[in-house]
Amino acid sequence: MKVPVAILGATGSVGQRFVSLLADHPYFEISELFASMKSAGKPYGESVNWVIDQPVPDSVKTLPVKSLDDRVEADIVFSALPASIAAGLERELADRGKYVFTNASAHRMDHDVPILVPEVNPDHFEIVRGKRGFIVANPNCTTSGLVIPLKVIKDSAGIEDVLVVTMQAISGAGYPGIPSLSIFDNLIPHIENEEEKVRRESRKILGQVTSSGVEPADFRVEARCTRVPVRDGHTEVVFVKTSKPISPDRLKHELENFRGLPQKMNLPTAPARPIIVEDDRTRPQPYSDRLNGNGMSVTVGNLRADSIMGITFTLVVHNTIRGAAGGSILNAELALKSGILDL
Amino acid sequence: MKVPVAILGATGSVGQRFVSLLADHPYFEISELFASMKSAGKPYGESVNWVIDQPVPDSVKTLPVKSLDDRVEADIVFSALPASIAAGLERELADRGKYVFTNASAHRMDHDVPILVPEVNPDHFEIVRGKRGFIVANPNCTTSGLVIPLKVIKDSAGIEDVLVVTMQAISGAGYPGIPSLSIFDNLIPHIENEEEKVRRESRKILGQVTSSGVEPADFRVEARCTRVPVRDGHTEVVFVKTSKPISPDRLKHELENFRGLPQKMNLPTAPARPIIVEDDRTRPQPYSDRLNGNGMSVTVGNLRADSIMGITFTLVVHNTIRGAAGGSILNAELALKSGILDL
Amino acid sequence: MKVPVAILGATGSVGQRFVSLLADHPYFEISELFASMKSAGKPYGESVNWVIDQPVPDSVKTLPVKSLDDRVEADIVFSALPASIAAGLERELADRGKYVFTNASAHRMDHDVPILVPEVNPDHFEIVRGKRGFIVANPNCTTSGLVIPLKVIKDSAGIEDVLVVTMQAISGAGYPGIPSLSIFDNLIPHIENEEEKVRRESRKILGQVTSSGVEPADFRVEARCTRVPVRDGHTEVVFVKTSKPISPDRLKHELENFRGLPQKMNLPTAPARPIIVEDDRTRPQPYSDRLNGNGMSVTVGNLRADSIMGITFTLVVHNTIRGAAGGSILNAELALKSGILDL
Amino acid sequence: MKVPVAILGATGSVGQRFVSLLADHPYFEISELFASMKSAGKPYGESVNWVIDQPVPDSVKTLPVKSLDDRVEADIVFSALPASIAAGLERELADRGKYVFTNASAHRMDHDVPILVPEVNPDHFEIVRGKRGFIVANPNCTTSGLVIPLKVIKDSAGIEDVLVVTMQAISGAGYPGIPSLSIFDNLIPHIENEEEKVRRESRKILGQVTSSGVEPADFRVEARCTRVPVRDGHTEVVFVKTSKPISPDRLKHELENFRGLPQKMNLPTAPARPIIVEDDRTRPQPYSDRLNGNGMSVTVGNLRADSIMGITFTLVVHNTIRGAAGGSILNAELALKSGILDL
Repeated sequence: MKVPVAILGATGSVGQRFVSLLADHPYFEISELFASMKSAGKPYGESVNWVIDQPVPDSVKTLPVKSLDDRVEADIVFSALPASIAAGLERELADRGKYVFTNASAHRMDHDVPILVPEVNPDHFEIVRGKRGFIVANPNCTTSGLVIPLKVIKDSAGIEDVLVVTMQAISGAGYPGIPSLSIFDNLIPHIENEEEKVRRESRKILGQVTSSGVEPADFRVEARCTRVPVRDGHTEVVFVKTSKPISPDRLKHELENFRGLPQKMNLPTAPARPIIVEDDRTRPQPYSDRLNGNGMSVTVGNLRADSIMGITFTLVVHNTIRGAAGGSILNAELALKSGILDL
Repeated sequence: MKVPVAILGATGSVGQRFVSLLADHPYFEISELFASMKSAGKPYGESVNWVIDQPVPDSVKTLPVKSLDDRVEADIVFSALPASIAAGLERELADRGKYVFTNASAHRMDHDVPILVPEVNPDHFEIVRGKRGFIVANPNCTTSGLVIPLKVIKDSAGIEDVLVVTMQAISGAGYPGIPSLSIFDNLIPHIENEEEKVRRESRKILGQVTSSGVEPADFRVEARCTRVPVRDGHTEVVFVKTSKPISPDRLKHELENFRGLPQKMNLPTAPARPIIVEDDRTRPQPYSDRLNGNGMSVTVGNLRADSIMGITFTLVVHNTIRGAAGGSILNAELALKSGILDL
Repeated sequence: MKVPVAILGATGSVGQRFVSLLADHPYFEISELFASMKSAGKPYGESVNWVIDQPVPDSVKTLPVKSLDDRVEADIVFSALPASIAAGLERELADRGKYVFTNASAHRMDHDVPILVPEVNPDHFEIVRGKRGFIVANPNCTTSGLVIPLKVIKDSAGIEDVLVVTMQAISGAGYPGIPSLSIFDNLIPHIENEEEKVRRESRKILGQVTSSGVEPADFRVEARCTRVPVRDGHTEVVFVKTSKPISPDRLKHELENFRGLPQKMNLPTAPARPIIVEDDRTRPQPYSDRLNGNGMSVTVGNLRADSIMGITFTLVVHNTIRGAAGGSILNAELALKSGILDL
Repeated sequence: MKVPVAILGATGSVGQRFVSLLADHPYFEISELFASMKSAGKPYGESVNWVIDQPVPDSVKTLPVKSLDDRVEADIVFSALPASIAAGLERELADRGKYVFTNASAHRMDHDVPILVPEVNPDHFEIVRGKRGFIVANPNCTTSGLVIPLKVIKDSAGIEDVLVVTMQAISGAGYPGIPSLSIFDNLIPHIENEEEKVRRESRKILGQVTSSGVEPADFRVEARCTRVPVRDGHTEVVFVKTSKPISPDRLKHELENFRGLPQKMNLPTAPARPIIVEDDRTRPQPYSDRLNGNGMSVTVGNLRADSIMGITFTLVVHNTIRGAAGGSILNAELALKSGILDL
């Protein structure tokens, strides 16, 4: 018996990833799809402007889309809503006892909402354990990829400073998102609010649960975010100043051998290896590495010492799988199997 | 009366820029085009696989291409040769009394060869002044864009550390260069030898002429170089730790008002403004800004304080104009008008 | 003394081409720029989202944008309006005595509006000669490139059937136009109303002026229109069944040697050769050939006999220069120099 | 017990598709991988420049690559060799009793080699039935997609003329294949020998087996082939003149309901529907439709009457799955299950 789940914002580009990843899930079954009024009433297959290269799953093609004004029946709700709509609606659902796993940024910094990456901070579930109805967020796409290796570095050598320059895929901006004339033979060196999100969220995720929420980690983070003409997969060039010295070889070993709780629990969306390290200096590349671990692994390469910050490497993370829908689903799998949900 | 010039490696992608920029030049006239054996003897228009969007200039279409084994007649030689061929041939030409302005990397670190950017280190011409025959190099494309704002920062506040992450255009790899399957919907986080070149060349350019060559500047430079699917125009995200504090506003003012010797001398290839500063945070962009100042201006934007390094900004430079052929031509204009050449 | 001109819809992608091509024109001077309310009052340089790779011309950067509700002063008006706005406004301006040269489709099929391509049907000016105030249209971008070689074929061998398959650039859809996720690593095999426009407009242009307008040419035209990930430059694969046989060599000779009235009158925007024929079978290509004749030549290649239709070839035309703004400007130059305008 | 198979040319772009599609096949097991000398001896994972977005299958990563000079052990051989090498080697293997399923063009027109598309001409297996050792070819990628709907049209209404304009993906040119500078913001209106292949192969496939080979079908075929900046998936705009009239609606019905022998036999690589018809006029698109039926369905759309040829439509076919490796594998599945192979 699978657990019925609802998807909010199901026709958007992250919503489509939720649909695609949940269409044949061992624990969950899509029972409701919600979108804006203009899609409501139509079969999902007709109302969605599908932007994923795999076809729309047959099982949801004829499912009628509900309006966001309609009542949500399922107890587990995945949200791919725009932040402005998520702000009110997700809180309301949690108050009504729903378990909301959201990709929206609206509540990430709320004191009663953990930003969860199961390999990194599963203990942050403490914030919501025992509640009937809650919101659990995954981080924004860039932070999702960054915090996994940072967790390993923090545990191995401590972190003083993190500096990251990103090259982010166009799918991160949703649909219609970026006009083709703006990004074709071009890149854009700014993504609204993204640098702030990386700073805030990475420190919260790697912080400590306290009685009043989360005390953020005390390292400094600077991010410079760029949009590039790549369809899926964010690339991040990372520099880290560690608290104590660590050799690139040692760090490589730690990264490769890292396994988290989802791996130990063998959760269905958990990749066998959260971090894959590539020795070939031309890797990682978004085209070649974004689907590693079915889009849930972070691929690290070009790891070397640098004379200014200490350690530098490049990572690739799939922005709409690990960085959005897949991250949220892994959160829900962990919650379900940890007995946090009262269904 | 224009001065006749020869172009070596005239059919390659940088060679084409030389042809395009010199086809209608007020000082120089293309008298000879050299390429490999397989092009030799054919009219230029038939032997070149033209990759620039402006048509092949009519004035050179029928000029027969000479073989690199043929004797060079012109006293001024522009070289777009691959480093391996440049190594021997450029030295030989200099020994025969030719003035070689080269984009090749072969001799950049030689003690008797200046790496020259006329706005930055025109005094380095001292190394070759008075010689009958010499080699003058321009820096690699990435460094070409970087050292112009660094010059201003060094003069205003001193430099301790420079950290740069690049997103480089495919034209920088020449023709045939990067296979389309390697870069389409993708990026490549490594460019062979590029990081070392940026480190070495930027410190030499901003160094001091001494009796035995150039004493490099003593700041640290780290570079991480990436190839992205953009046709022309390198983007660089730069972080600088200055010796003394400088506010972003003050630095912006210095960058905007910087003028160098080529501006004062009104050289034909010199842009009115070596540095253009954009306030719009979505700029600079390679498509929109690479042709600023006819491809000779560096466009800077997203200039702000950062908590780790101090100052950060993004720049765009046209890699085959300012970063290659245009840079070399500006060097030759300066040499000619400064009376360094004995023609 | 230059003639002042107004540009309507000056901030759109075709409007930008008008601005770019008129900024330094020998006959005309931009005196007014009109756009929608949200741009009105702001300097042009600040209100436009510039999508051309050459920088915004300095001469118009500070020109304040007027609202479409404001009164137009200039007698010559270039229109890059959307069809829905053009429908009422252009007619109103013509009624007020303005000479409207429009790229909009709204009035192209009106009996008192010629669709003009100066090399093809300059005699269609008869429809408006002597009027104080009129509308003269250029054809849609695809037809603009098609009718020039068709004119030569019609005069040489007569035309029975024309079948054309297009691969059209994204700039043809304006800004924001096509979302990047829709066209990246993709193409779209349908462009709304485009096939009908090609059919209708090409037959009107190659038709006969009669007392009641234009009697369309009687050949059949079928078009299949596709959007492809190319920035500028439409490619068209054309098949023609001629009325009497003509060899590819003979036709090639006719195409190459064709000159029209604008060439004879030496109009500033007229290319030296309206049609350039390439022998290299890999040509024409949009990147390499769209700027031939400063974007005003049509480049033809791959001309050969085919066993079904008789003759086949490929052409490239710059869709926003010859196919839009440049075409309209050439119409205005011809009108001015032919004494059709009463200024 | 799976049947061991060898792959020749396993490191090329089509070879990679064979590997990817056979890594987990119900009938076949990859036992040998052959490539050129420079790869020989190395593990497959290290010698291949992988250009598919799914990771290299774990099962073949460590399989050592054999040289083409080494002896082939398996009885079933899949060939992704370049035509020049295939010419001698495939014939030699067939003579030694191997069953060669090849994507190479070298022997396609040989009288004892069928070009097989299981849904279209399974009866052509007669040419090789009973032989110990043979060559069976699949058609070139463009023809693979074209002949499936043509088969339906031929059976429904007869065919007089076929005119096709293609827009072909870059993966069709292999690796390194097309330089990025040649195809970026560009397209190329010519593909060497492709037009001839389409003409020849489509008529052979739809022809009749006779005692001396295949008598080609007698309709005329004209093709104009273009390379476009799309990674995978060929698009073809097709015009057909039928022998007797057929309405678009009727044809649509026939196409949708067509099922071939592989569907009846439920072969593992056979798609449920060989042809999918889309009503949405913006379809088919390569990004959205190339993976329909796991890359084995042909998607047809924009089907309508046209006034010149009679019927026109657009199709998308995955060029390296149905158009290459997948097509060959389906041939082998059919051969195995039909008892044609003596293993």
